Amino acid sequence: MSEALFPNAELSEEGEFAGWSYWSGDAFEAHSGPFFMRRDPDNGEYVCAFRAEDRHMNGAGFMHGGCLLTFADFALFAFAMEELGGEMGVTMNLSGDFLGAVQNGSLVEARGEVTRGGGKTLFVRGLATADGEPALSFTGIVRKISQ
Amino acid sequence: MSEALFPNAELSEEGEFAGWSYWSGDAFEAHSGPFFMRRDPDNGEYVCAFRAEDRHMNGAGFMHGGCLLTFADFALFAFAMEELGGEMGVTMNLSGDFLGAVQNGSLVEARGEVTRGGGKTLFVRGLATADGEPALSFTGIVRKISQ
Amino acid sequence: MSEALFPNAELSEEGEFAGWSYWSGDAFEAHSGPFFMRRDPDNGEYVCAFRAEDRHMNGAGFMHGGCLLTFADFALFAFAMEELGGEMGVTMNLSGDFLGAVQNGSLVEARGEVTRGGGKTLFVRGLATADGEPALSFTGIVRKISQ
Amino acid sequence: MSEALFPNAELSEEGEFAGWSYWSGDAFEAHSGPFFMRRDPDNGEYVCAFRAEDRHMNGAGFMHGGCLLTFADFALFAFAMEELGGEMGVTMNLSGDFLGAVQNGSLVEARGEVTRGGGKTLFVRGLATADGEPALSFTGIVRKISQ
Repeated sequence: MSEALFPNAELSEEGEFAGWSYWSGDAFEAHSGPFFMRRDPDNGEYVCAFRAEDRHMNGAGFMHGGCLLTFADFALFAFAMEELGGEMGVTMNLSGDFLGAVQNGSLVEARGEVTRGGGKTLFVRGLATADGEPALSFTGIVRKISQ
Repeated sequence: MSEALFPNAELSEEGEFAGWSYWSGDAFEAHSGPFFMRRDPDNGEYVCAFRAEDRHMNGAGFMHGGCLLTFADFALFAFAMEELGGEMGVTMNLSGDFLGAVQNGSLVEARGEVTRGGGKTLFVRGLATADGEPALSFTGIVRKISQ
Repeated sequence: MSEALFPNAELSEEGEFAGWSYWSGDAFEAHSGPFFMRRDPDNGEYVCAFRAEDRHMNGAGFMHGGCLLTFADFALFAFAMEELGGEMGVTMNLSGDFLGAVQNGSLVEARGEVTRGGGKTLFVRGLATADGEPALSFTGIVRKISQ
Repeated sequence: MSEALFPNAELSEEGEFAGWSYWSGDAFEAHSGPFFMRRDPDNGEYVCAFRAEDRHMNGAGFMHGGCLLTFADFALFAFAMEELGGEMGVTMNLSGDFLGAVQNGSLVEARGEVTRGGGKTLFVRGLATADGEPALSFTGIVRKISQ
């Protein structure tokens, strides 16, 4: 079960993602990513992104499926942030269709939406691209954990 | 798309997984895991395993969903190894149900099966546990890439 | 959302499935099926079954994917029956991998298990066969609705 | 495995869906539906639709999950119609998140897109609503069958 505490995001201050937010308190995510998010200045949508590096690749020289799914799990919580309203959530299901190989060096971005919110169970879907080409179509179910 | 070249596995020579195989040529997997596999001496089934450490945890102190899915992607190829017969494969779909939080220090194991093989498309399912408790139920579709 | 009230099952009194239970109060299921279930006399497992007929076929002469998924949704509740303990449940997610074409006239059977129960959310998986050949691998998430 | 032959669609000539296309040669679909599709006159998108009736309901008085998934399987092929280009296809995976109960009498509509085409494997996703409210989020993988 994947859990994330939202208020703890930090702001990236340098490099390609200066001005984007990320979570530094999540060991696996910091180690795999970090992954970044911001609101698209044009339309207010949440956008998630990272740059593909050697360490994200598999033995065949493409991005590991687990890396894309880790990014997707991050993105679920970014897209659901307002619905979560500061509460914690856990991923109940994450399903991914691998649309195309992601090359080293490419810019991976994800956009998505809450398809059903309003209660304790949030349904989310998203689409990740690599340099604009289809990479991963994903859906997730997140359950709010009240404290 | 997650690709793996099977013949390159190495044998772990020390520690808890001495005698188990792993792939060292897969950057993301080596970094996230490594994850280990062997045949169960009792029944010949493939078993995959790793030990949960700090670096696999999320901000809430449980294992990150992306870590479990990366392990599941590894396990798909372990379970499909004979069907792949040395050919490469790519993951087309990986879907996971998160059954319970995985605690730091626990032993994560996965067992599974090819539900349909015999062609270029392999269907696989598996179940991961943490110290014997349900952790992840997963299904995957792997497509052979002939070279 | 797929809902079912368990205590209302009836017993089939004739034909191939004499002695098996089915629900007559579910219009879509009665119309698509009916689908039958019983406990395997050998091991106590729940088994679900029906016989493929013309009306279950698609335009290409094989069983329609929607028919198999309707049967799978039925089977989720059969496998979860004890965990539900007479309460209603709704399907939150149902995912199916189509393993092989189902021919007219074949006997379709499903077996499965609750991979995680004990709370309000039940995780289930199953495998359907047609005359013993792989037909559908499925997973589902069912949520109990307390009344 | 769900198969459909595209060129055989017919035009509905009366009732609410006059001018929409449907397939009459698919026994299960004709029986469950029929389901209708057309191109949205405003933007050229494929839209699929049907009207919820008594016979689509489950024992609790809501639409059966299997009915929604049968409609989704139909919609996959509608959304993929141009990519299929008259060839047959089979569904390899269909996954659905049930977003909300569908009431008797409501208008069920689905819109979607091919997230990755261009080859023999087509990845599709869609969203179904009932009287405009979220009903089902679905993804599917369809494989072209050359003849």
